[in-house]
Amino acid sequence: MTHALYQLIELSFRGESALPVIATAPFTVRLRHADGDEVTVAGFWDGGRDYRARFLPEKPGSWSWAVENARTPLDVLGGSVDVGEARGRGPVRVAHTFHFAHADGTPFRPVGGTAYNWLHQDEPLFGDTISSFVEARFNKLRFMVFPQAGGSVEHAPELMPFEKTDGRWDVTRPVPAFFQRLDGAVRALGEAGIEADVLILNAYDRGVFGLNELSEEEDAIYARYLVARLAAFPNVWWSLCNEYDQLLRPEERWDRLGQLIADIDPSQHPRSIHNWMHIFDNNRPWVTHASIQNGFATEKPGRARIYRDAYYKPIVLDEIKYEGNAAARWGQLSGEELVDRFWNVTIDGCYASHGESYETESGSLQIVEGGRLRGSSPARIGFLRGILDDLVVPGLDPIDKWDDPELGVGWGRRQYLIYFGRTAPASWRVRIPITHYEGEAPVEDDRFVVDIIDTWNMTITRAGEFEIDEVHRDFAFAGADPVALPEGEAIAVRVTRADLV
Amino acid sequence: MTHALYQLIELSFRGESALPVIATAPFTVRLRHADGDEVTVAGFWDGGRDYRARFLPEKPGSWSWAVENARTPLDVLGGSVDVGEARGRGPVRVAHTFHFAHADGTPFRPVGGTAYNWLHQDEPLFGDTISSFVEARFNKLRFMVFPQAGGSVEHAPELMPFEKTDGRWDVTRPVPAFFQRLDGAVRALGEAGIEADVLILNAYDRGVFGLNELSEEEDAIYARYLVARLAAFPNVWWSLCNEYDQLLRPEERWDRLGQLIADIDPSQHPRSIHNWMHIFDNNRPWVTHASIQNGFATEKPGRARIYRDAYYKPIVLDEIKYEGNAAARWGQLSGEELVDRFWNVTIDGCYASHGESYETESGSLQIVEGGRLRGSSPARIGFLRGILDDLVVPGLDPIDKWDDPELGVGWGRRQYLIYFGRTAPASWRVRIPITHYEGEAPVEDDRFVVDIIDTWNMTITRAGEFEIDEVHRDFAFAGADPVALPEGEAIAVRVTRADLV
Repeated sequence: MTHALYQLIELSFRGESALPVIATAPFTVRLRHADGDEVTVAGFWDGGRDYRARFLPEKPGSWSWAVENARTPLDVLGGSVDVGEARGRGPVRVAHTFHFAHADGTPFRPVGGTAYNWLHQDEPLFGDTISSFVEARFNKLRFMVFPQAGGSVEHAPELMPFEKTDGRWDVTRPVPAFFQRLDGAVRALGEAGIEADVLILNAYDRGVFGLNELSEEEDAIYARYLVARLAAFPNVWWSLCNEYDQLLRPEERWDRLGQLIADIDPSQHPRSIHNWMHIFDNNRPWVTHASIQNGFATEKPGRARIYRDAYYKPIVLDEIKYEGNAAARWGQLSGEELVDRFWNVTIDGCYASHGESYETESGSLQIVEGGRLRGSSPARIGFLRGILDDLVVPGLDPIDKWDDPELGVGWGRRQYLIYFGRTAPASWRVRIPITHYEGEAPVEDDRFVVDIIDTWNMTITRAGEFEIDEVHRDFAFAGADPVALPEGEAIAVRVTRADLV
Repeated sequence: MTHALYQLIELSFRGESALPVIATAPFTVRLRHADGDEVTVAGFWDGGRDYRARFLPEKPGSWSWAVENARTPLDVLGGSVDVGEARGRGPVRVAHTFHFAHADGTPFRPVGGTAYNWLHQDEPLFGDTISSFVEARFNKLRFMVFPQAGGSVEHAPELMPFEKTDGRWDVTRPVPAFFQRLDGAVRALGEAGIEADVLILNAYDRGVFGLNELSEEEDAIYARYLVARLAAFPNVWWSLCNEYDQLLRPEERWDRLGQLIADIDPSQHPRSIHNWMHIFDNNRPWVTHASIQNGFATEKPGRARIYRDAYYKPIVLDEIKYEGNAAARWGQLSGEELVDRFWNVTIDGCYASHGESYETESGSLQIVEGGRLRGSSPARIGFLRGILDDLVVPGLDPIDKWDDPELGVGWGRRQYLIYFGRTAPASWRVRIPITHYEGEAPVEDDRFVVDIIDTWNMTITRAGEFEIDEVHRDFAFAGADPVALPEGEAIAVRVTRADLV
């Protein structure tokens, strides 16, 4: 059998039952490619006498493998797998400092959503969440492994991650059915083209389940088990915690957990930690991208970009307040406001996540349990995703980061995106800045195609093709006649060199 | 003789001449207070057979001292000094995370200016710089140890910091007269109440003097010598470099230099490194405060505060573009614009430095050579300094950092400062937010004094004393009648609990 490149390969074993799950894996598997590349993955216990090891191949060809360091006798100790053509694009990693790309080089622009307690919902809610994300074109889902307690949670799960020993959660006795469900959730997202932004810990247990009481050693055992199970799924992202600073743990403890995951994940998935009021030091080496809660930073353009030059990593504004009618001020944005925030973030060279806080039939919120989306923003955010997917540049960087945000984002002489915000002018003269962050300066005779984007009405109208006929000081101009902009409060312009369209 | 607390004590010695200056100090002096406190300072060579050791006492009483680790025979090997009452307030250090205070606890609010090449000017320019700073009420001066070459520099100094050996600067042979002049400059600033923000290296040599060619080992020898000479001046701040990233050195090298200074400075003066286009990782442990060049961050309120939660250190915007008529866009701000930027920074809980770029009689700029100030902003910035000095709180922190910047800065129930920017309303209803970052919520019957500040016309008008008569949701209100605000585009309001005025 030939496996697909960028798809999980699972090796199954029979061993001893009841081997406790500890920091040391029950066995490891060393895989060796015909050309000498080696990868080592940790095996894991999956219930009864079942053991597995999972591998995410990033190179086609033949991989031989051998069991090493076994703490349990296994029925198979070696073999080989053949990897053929790619299915999917491979795991996402940082590209061009501020952006992401799949392993095959395809840019990935996160346009994600949020359903914290999704994993713990029954059908049809569980499946509806995925289908509503597909419909909205969201490509990342932030959800928690451990169940949420308290605020707006109407559903306590039956499946819990660990057995109890003497009344205390025992991380050495994981519940296979719980983690198999998690496997299935990640797999289902992957099949729907959605990255699984896995929140390993959360701050919302509030003592109800007691899963917030794990010690640092217990966290590490759990994290090793989680990485052994999930790291071979191509669509996994690791987020250490949602609102980490609600948990009273020293920052050093989070730092060690993040470094542990960096050390043991063979696939080097994206790693982040999400704040409440105190942003983590995203300059720590294990942090691959900043996952920041700060709606304020997205309310006006020019704020979120400040983070880029504090961290020199991709900036993902995960929680920028929600569209909805909640009583709390984090959940009262109109659809227009949330869409405007997404565009502000885009024009600052950053990314954002959606969340919705209209009360649902069950009395909960979509950000908590998932399900169908009610708001007016998802369609427009999906429209934005389409624009990002169609970019002919690796990422959008501010053209003139610390001087003129009106020059928009893009790459010099290739493509530019300008957003006029909620007060668009009636017309725009085609002028392209000489300055640039990436790329090069436009020159006379360059031809550019100009598209007018109505971000709310979701239209893209070709204004025409223009030739640069004047380069004067800071700008290259095309023609004297400005392009008319439509009525509407949220208009953008996309300028693409004609040969790249 | 009794020395003053917080003033430099100098011990003088005679030893061998021509002992090369290397990484190991020629001797150290261990000082021991009667109650057991110990401080060790490095001695240094000061020309011929003269050696010195300097000590900045932070505790009154008797300190005995003894020479240790001498590489040269010295004429005196021990003694004692008596320290009496304080003169001055002692060195500045970080206080309350985002702010500064002198060693005696007095808050220090940097309102500084810039004259990069000041040290290398003759009189009257040299003295005029200090007197113009005193007149403007600037309390910090950013200047470079090594001379500037190139842009707007009309004066090449005769004194250089080192002798040459085989045509190359020899850091083991410092020029005492050069460093004595530096001592005098720092002392003169101190006597004028101005902190000396010493730029240890700079990016403007451009090969003219060749001082940009020192190796990492040579940097370290120079830095050790500089610290031995200057660390006992109470008003010293260390800045590793202006626009460090113009020099093509790996970030790790800067990091090691910063850590070296942190390790060897007995007085632990403020430490920073100033960027051109790439902000240094201000989360590095040796960085005490962020010294950031980014005028854009100060152009609108709500931007600079983003840095606070990236670094959790004081944020000093050192270079926010200059008031002047220079051709380059960094030097074309009007006085009104620069004053507005200072207020934006203040209202974001940060600090800024002034700079002026009107062409001077010599064809240079004030930011380069110093001298008298021509612009309209210094008087207004000095006025702002007066307001900061009069604060009854340790520092100004955004009241509602990620939600409502219009709530201003301050400490809950003590003092608030609100800046209406360049579009002030005609009146303001006295309302005090319940939320707070520091301090506590106001309650009914609290009395507050309201002052109207015209930031441009430099007036403070008492609007009256108001009693809180209604607490409703997010605000405490005093009376139904709003306070009238004067005409003018840059109005602020200061609200102080009556018993603290």
